[in-house]
Amino acid sequence: MRTNIPEIIYGEYKTLEQTLELTTKLLDKHPRVVVSRSPFYKELNEHFKDNFPVLWSVNATVIGEMPQPKGKVLVISAGSADHPVTYECEVVLRAVGVEPMVFEDRGIAHPTRVLEAIKAGVEQDVAAVIVVAGMEGALAPFVSSLVALPVIGVPTSVGYGFRAKEAALTSMLASCAPNLTVVNIDGGLRAAVVAALIAKNR
Amino acid sequence: MRTNIPEIIYGEYKTLEQTLELTTKLLDKHPRVVVSRSPFYKELNEHFKDNFPVLWSVNATVIGEMPQPKGKVLVISAGSADHPVTYECEVVLRAVGVEPMVFEDRGIAHPTRVLEAIKAGVEQDVAAVIVVAGMEGALAPFVSSLVALPVIGVPTSVGYGFRAKEAALTSMLASCAPNLTVVNIDGGLRAAVVAALIAKNR
Amino acid sequence: MRTNIPEIIYGEYKTLEQTLELTTKLLDKHPRVVVSRSPFYKELNEHFKDNFPVLWSVNATVIGEMPQPKGKVLVISAGSADHPVTYECEVVLRAVGVEPMVFEDRGIAHPTRVLEAIKAGVEQDVAAVIVVAGMEGALAPFVSSLVALPVIGVPTSVGYGFRAKEAALTSMLASCAPNLTVVNIDGGLRAAVVAALIAKNR
Amino acid sequence: MRTNIPEIIYGEYKTLEQTLELTTKLLDKHPRVVVSRSPFYKELNEHFKDNFPVLWSVNATVIGEMPQPKGKVLVISAGSADHPVTYECEVVLRAVGVEPMVFEDRGIAHPTRVLEAIKAGVEQDVAAVIVVAGMEGALAPFVSSLVALPVIGVPTSVGYGFRAKEAALTSMLASCAPNLTVVNIDGGLRAAVVAALIAKNR
Amino acid sequence: MRTNIPEIIYGEYKTLEQTLELTTKLLDKHPRVVVSRSPFYKELNEHFKDNFPVLWSVNATVIGEMPQPKGKVLVISAGSADHPVTYECEVVLRAVGVEPMVFEDRGIAHPTRVLEAIKAGVEQDVAAVIVVAGMEGALAPFVSSLVALPVIGVPTSVGYGFRAKEAALTSMLASCAPNLTVVNIDGGLRAAVVAALIAKNR
Amino acid sequence: MRTNIPEIIYGEYKTLEQTLELTTKLLDKHPRVVVSRSPFYKELNEHFKDNFPVLWSVNATVIGEMPQPKGKVLVISAGSADHPVTYECEVVLRAVGVEPMVFEDRGIAHPTRVLEAIKAGVEQDVAAVIVVAGMEGALAPFVSSLVALPVIGVPTSVGYGFRAKEAALTSMLASCAPNLTVVNIDGGLRAAVVAALIAKNR
Amino acid sequence: MRTNIPEIIYGEYKTLEQTLELTTKLLDKHPRVVVSRSPFYKELNEHFKDNFPVLWSVNATVIGEMPQPKGKVLVISAGSADHPVTYECEVVLRAVGVEPMVFEDRGIAHPTRVLEAIKAGVEQDVAAVIVVAGMEGALAPFVSSLVALPVIGVPTSVGYGFRAKEAALTSMLASCAPNLTVVNIDGGLRAAVVAALIAKNR
Amino acid sequence: MRTNIPEIIYGEYKTLEQTLELTTKLLDKHPRVVVSRSPFYKELNEHFKDNFPVLWSVNATVIGEMPQPKGKVLVISAGSADHPVTYECEVVLRAVGVEPMVFEDRGIAHPTRVLEAIKAGVEQDVAAVIVVAGMEGALAPFVSSLVALPVIGVPTSVGYGFRAKEAALTSMLASCAPNLTVVNIDGGLRAAVVAALIAKNR
Ligand SMILES: Nc1ncnc2c1ncn2[C@@H]1O[C@H](COP(=O)(O)O)[C@@H](O)[C@H]1O
Ligand SMILES: Nc1ncnc2c1ncn2[C@@H]1O[C@H](COP(=O)(O)O)[C@@H](O)[C@H]1O
Ligand SMILES: Nc1ncnc2c1ncn2[C@@H]1O[C@H](COP(=O)(O)O)[C@@H](O)[C@H]1O
Ligand SMILES: Nc1ncnc2c1ncn2[C@@H]1O[C@H](COP(=O)(O)O)[C@@H](O)[C@H]1O
Ligand SMILES: [Mg+2]
Ligand SMILES: [Mg+2]
Ligand SMILES: [Mg+2]
Ligand SMILES: [Mg+2]
Ligand SMILES: [Mg+2]
Ligand SMILES: [Mg+2]
Ligand SMILES: [Mg+2]
Ligand SMILES: [Mg+2]
Repeated sequence: MRTNIPEIIYGEYKTLEQTLELTTKLLDKHPRVVVSRSPFYKELNEHFKDNFPVLWSVNATVIGEMPQPKGKVLVISAGSADHPVTYECEVVLRAVGVEPMVFEDRGIAHPTRVLEAIKAGVEQDVAAVIVVAGMEGALAPFVSSLVALPVIGVPTSVGYGFRAKEAALTSMLASCAPNLTVVNIDGGLRAAVVAALIAKNR
Repeated sequence: MRTNIPEIIYGEYKTLEQTLELTTKLLDKHPRVVVSRSPFYKELNEHFKDNFPVLWSVNATVIGEMPQPKGKVLVISAGSADHPVTYECEVVLRAVGVEPMVFEDRGIAHPTRVLEAIKAGVEQDVAAVIVVAGMEGALAPFVSSLVALPVIGVPTSVGYGFRAKEAALTSMLASCAPNLTVVNIDGGLRAAVVAALIAKNR
Repeated sequence: MRTNIPEIIYGEYKTLEQTLELTTKLLDKHPRVVVSRSPFYKELNEHFKDNFPVLWSVNATVIGEMPQPKGKVLVISAGSADHPVTYECEVVLRAVGVEPMVFEDRGIAHPTRVLEAIKAGVEQDVAAVIVVAGMEGALAPFVSSLVALPVIGVPTSVGYGFRAKEAALTSMLASCAPNLTVVNIDGGLRAAVVAALIAKNR
Repeated sequence: MRTNIPEIIYGEYKTLEQTLELTTKLLDKHPRVVVSRSPFYKELNEHFKDNFPVLWSVNATVIGEMPQPKGKVLVISAGSADHPVTYECEVVLRAVGVEPMVFEDRGIAHPTRVLEAIKAGVEQDVAAVIVVAGMEGALAPFVSSLVALPVIGVPTSVGYGFRAKEAALTSMLASCAPNLTVVNIDGGLRAAVVAALIAKNR
Repeated sequence: MRTNIPEIIYGEYKTLEQTLELTTKLLDKHPRVVVSRSPFYKELNEHFKDNFPVLWSVNATVIGEMPQPKGKVLVISAGSADHPVTYECEVVLRAVGVEPMVFEDRGIAHPTRVLEAIKAGVEQDVAAVIVVAGMEGALAPFVSSLVALPVIGVPTSVGYGFRAKEAALTSMLASCAPNLTVVNIDGGLRAAVVAALIAKNR
Repeated sequence: MRTNIPEIIYGEYKTLEQTLELTTKLLDKHPRVVVSRSPFYKELNEHFKDNFPVLWSVNATVIGEMPQPKGKVLVISAGSADHPVTYECEVVLRAVGVEPMVFEDRGIAHPTRVLEAIKAGVEQDVAAVIVVAGMEGALAPFVSSLVALPVIGVPTSVGYGFRAKEAALTSMLASCAPNLTVVNIDGGLRAAVVAALIAKNR
Repeated sequence: MRTNIPEIIYGEYKTLEQTLELTTKLLDKHPRVVVSRSPFYKELNEHFKDNFPVLWSVNATVIGEMPQPKGKVLVISAGSADHPVTYECEVVLRAVGVEPMVFEDRGIAHPTRVLEAIKAGVEQDVAAVIVVAGMEGALAPFVSSLVALPVIGVPTSVGYGFRAKEAALTSMLASCAPNLTVVNIDGGLRAAVVAALIAKNR
Repeated sequence: MRTNIPEIIYGEYKTLEQTLELTTKLLDKHPRVVVSRSPFYKELNEHFKDNFPVLWSVNATVIGEMPQPKGKVLVISAGSADHPVTYECEVVLRAVGVEPMVFEDRGIAHPTRVLEAIKAGVEQDVAAVIVVAGMEGALAPFVSSLVALPVIGVPTSVGYGFRAKEAALTSMLASCAPNLTVVNIDGGLRAAVVAALIAKNR
């Protein structure tokens, strides 16, 4: 099974050696490998870039040829501080084979900018929406109330003060928006895989 | 000092006898008394209504003549479940001598209804805005981004599930709206007193 | 917008009178209404059953004609204690217009019973899987590892002892399954709406 | 709207390049810009000081001409460890156009020193009081009981041991002072903006 | 050892039968027995009052002759809601053989009333001070800063909203008063025993 | 007593000098010493390796001759990130005198790999099973449901996001597996000692 | 597998009808059934006692013939408030086929009474020790330091005040006793099953 | 007032310059100054040692002549990791004018070593006992049950795993020992001041 989901290596606690070895082994049998949260994302790029296309970033790196995209997913983020997680969504959506439409810096302080992003996505018939937001995370219920599509909230650890890292998660879970589900804090990868499964199977 | 703030009795842990005695004693010297969170709000009304005007509710009761209102405060609530706290704000604003403009059931699921309420308040030149909201509390940062006035968020204990009673507080504290302050969960009285002090001293 | 999602009334803090009035008003304009978490679910049934089809339960009640189902969703629950939330999923899926396939009492203590349920769902080409589980919630990552479909975990408040009501949520969020998203504790309605949106738009 | 509130950039997760670019762009259209919580506050000062007046500090930096002050706000802090947040209040009050009266190191261990500060503020007819305090935060309810003005508590993260960073917030929220509202931990900017809005609109 | 401390029975989870039997057995060998937190405090009084002096209350009951008091302890409480715990302190102090000086309803909203109580205690040369306070518990650090005596804070569970039952404890632990120690929430008995040991051994 | 348990030094807060001195003193009277969580594990190896056999690792080091093993314990870990704790179990089992059978990287995403490990252990008649797992810790209840042996879960601090370090503990405690007990997070040593006591006394 | 562990029904959320039906069905194929945490323990006894031996209690009920005991387990509890959980251990140990040696009311306030219990157990060659304790749970590490046997701590929810229900668990997990493992709060059943597996397989 | 308590400077957030200046100013008027939690304790010693006696340590430094001791206090610590806090108690006791009797490394794993320490203290007629302990903090209730004196528990932040830094505090607060009070985590200074006030006023 799992025919749609690429091989994923959780890089956070692995040494560079372990990660290189494991990635190489998987690339033998699979067209591409996603390495998430590796502290060695730069070294991975250096090592593989001559033999494989590499799409690298702080949170997720894809090594190998991308599949032909099918379907679209809208990605909206609240602020530029959420960029690493937003970009993680983008990279992983491509790795699963879906075209991301990304709009950044669309906090609820600017409702018209949020509406623009949604309008653009709906016009392109996106299959799902990913909302990336830290702090109080209010963007997720706001977007959810404006589209009749599955929305996946990715609370980020951006913020300071009381429950700084958990506020967005708390608020997304508590929301009464009926079309909103949530992933772990900074869990861009999971949001992207689920959104992509929705889009590809439409 | 405290010339603006009426006498307030915290009724939650007091017996009916203690509350009646204390209220009576204060009414000798003061034009009105606020009794907050008394389990005996009905009995208080029965006892005093023949000799005093009484404005009673589950969360706060005012016994005595209301002062002449001066200035206005806008009160916006997210849902009908927030009504008891919303009405507590209304009652206490009147007791301090300010005219409340109350709009209920204006959750962020209906942005145009929120805008209507704000427009009405701004036209009447309100001095401050109180936002009463439970669940994820997203209404407070949303309203704050739309007015250049002091906003006081009252997170309510409405909701279920994870951190049900604390989610709105968490999210209001974490918000990046620069004109938003917060009171304790279900703390309608405090929000109303502060908003009224702002309005009366304009 | 929101053409797919039925009208939903959050009944938890509303009086019977408020709920009846609101429901009646909505039924004027909409073919069906979902009332969730109302303490008056029995009275609602009594009141409407002569004029409308009613599908009632502790957590969610649907009043009005059901739409023609399109697409299927698999619902797997861990134990019989999770039944009220499981049934909430079933009722809401029907209200949105999707056919639920429900398998209860499939905890990870019985891996073969879990596999049976998954096999049945995959054979019927379900579009998504809902996993309802309390206690340590391990069923959700287990199921997620066995299907290449979007999985929506509904942690329930079943359990006792340490973080009794939050353990399943904690564990589902922490899971490394890439195709698993989560809703609030006991949030059957939200899981069902999202799963139905996925299934209907395929 | 927001005519009173200056442009604010949340600097915490931005690179120096992003911050410089954004600040420069905003200075084209606005007389001043506040950059809060930027790790590059020194570099910002270096970069702009030849062309703009700069008021810089660890927590908040203002670039551009200050407006003519109108109205006064009293700022009282508990200890010298609270200085960075206290100074953030001062800087932002000036940026919004209000004159701060600052009294530091006035913990409740020295009640007469607290009274002196309050007396000075009341004599100058301040419109609101900001109380900056860490540890158990008892200064905020104490000050609130002594003035009939809106008080805004800024709990700081100063302290050690049990809930070191949250104790002051917890205690300010729990206080029974009716004229006290609260902002996030170390949230000097928000307190200053709200206090300034109160003072300027008097 | 433990010659100073009377026999104490923790009544909270015991049946009436268990409690009566245990008390009777202990009264055979000891001049008095303290029963704390028994749901059957009224029945205990009924049962023993014909044969023993009984000092009963909701939180603690003493059965048997009181010892001759030696030394004094000052007990100050913030509000009338703290009465049950305040009275528990009084009863237990007597049972250990110390004379309590009790001043209730002395919250920091009324600093002069606090000073009166302290003055009275110091004039009578009390050996220690017990401060009973709920909500934000600010009375304990305030009193501590005013006397050069050991102060024992008893945080109570009085209050509502965020961390309602823990706020006073949090704030008393975080206080920088060097002469303040703390007991468990609503732990009047422990405060009284320690204060009495201090007073009796002077 | 404690004839089975080797001398254990808790190295976490000790200086190198303290640790060397204590270890040397104990080696005078005991055949072997375990030093756990010492930041100086490399220095310890350097210092003792010429005179004693040393089995060293990040979490636990054994200095001295190993006892003759008696009995077997199965150790199963979820992922390679759990290796340091897994190896701590192995080292300590040997130090107590039991033969470890170690299978790593057996997460519930690969049920057949889990079954292989269990089958191998049961064939060798292991006396107990240790399960080392981070993230959602679902491996522990899964293994427990498959063997009629005492299972000891070691939750690890591997993971990110919500309650990252506590999720596995939370879920292992909440599990309904009747044959599962738990130790502290990253508490490999305790799991190994208990498992070894079970195995040796069979 | 699981040949040693009796059938267990988790009764907490089941109706009487569900519980009776399930129990009856299981008794057809198994010599005995354990029903844990059923609110209907009295009704269960009434229903089955004419046809089966029944060992009933608040927390756990065994229906069916007990197996012949083999091996012994020592059960020590801190106070009489812990009795329901202590008795749950006793009942379940008998159901698995082990002889319990139970000593109650042995808190660390009476170290000699603790030593007596341990001595008695060691003389009878018990295979493991269960320690049942609430409040600060200090009995578990104390007992663990006195025996070279596997100790299983059962923290109970007995206590009041700060983290009343979690204090014993917190302290047992944090203990440095190397031979102590822990189960969930009030988890007598799990402790008894594990201890019995150890004892029976010796 | 406060005639017994020396001047105390909270050094944690102060710069070296601020600390030197403040200390120098206070030494003009007072015979000695305590500087607690200063990161510059070494620099302080260097600066003052030629002109004043200095008793320095990581947690607390006393500059100036010590008073003549009067009365004794027993200090017992659980492990060598608790040394910095234990020594803080010792230094501060001397600064207030009391003779400390210090026994370290007396965990409950070695009950006879605990008894030795208590016996020594009682023979010297100590007025109070300070217990310094991390991890599960069980030493505090154990000691409290063995002496009829006021006991002050200082929970330390020593430990790892679940609630590592809070476990000892949690357990000391939850203890049922009637003669035990508690200070903040690592709050050696407060325990020493209170114990010294007790001892000096005997
Ligand atoms: N609902 C409330 N929330 C917070 N504080 C309150 C509330 N009601 C009354 N108080 C405060 O409680 C104090 C009166 O307490 P008491 O003397 O016990 O009646 C006054 O300082 C009031 O401002
Ligand atoms: N380690 C400490 N823990 C708690 N409070 C302290 C500590 N050291 C000093 N203080 C208190 O902090 C206050 C002095 O603060 P400051 O004026 O900032 O030096 C005095 O009230 C001291 O009693
Ligand atoms: N008191 C209990 N604590 C934890 N798990 C239990 C308890 N009682 C029964 N169980 C488990 O719950 C499962 C049975 O659940 P059910 O099928 O809902 O009766 C079995 O795996 C039992 O081992
Ligand atoms: N990693 C560990 N976790 C828990 N307890 C430990 C650990 N290592 C050593 N200990 C215990 O700590 C005590 C030794 O502490 P110490 O005397 O400070 O070296 C002994 O009781 C050991 O059983
Ligand atoms: Mg922005
Ligand atoms: Mg609504
Ligand atoms: Mg089952
Ligand atoms: Mg100071
Ligand atoms: Mg009062
Ligand atoms: Mg793996
Ligand atoms: Mg007892
Ligand atoms: Mg030791």
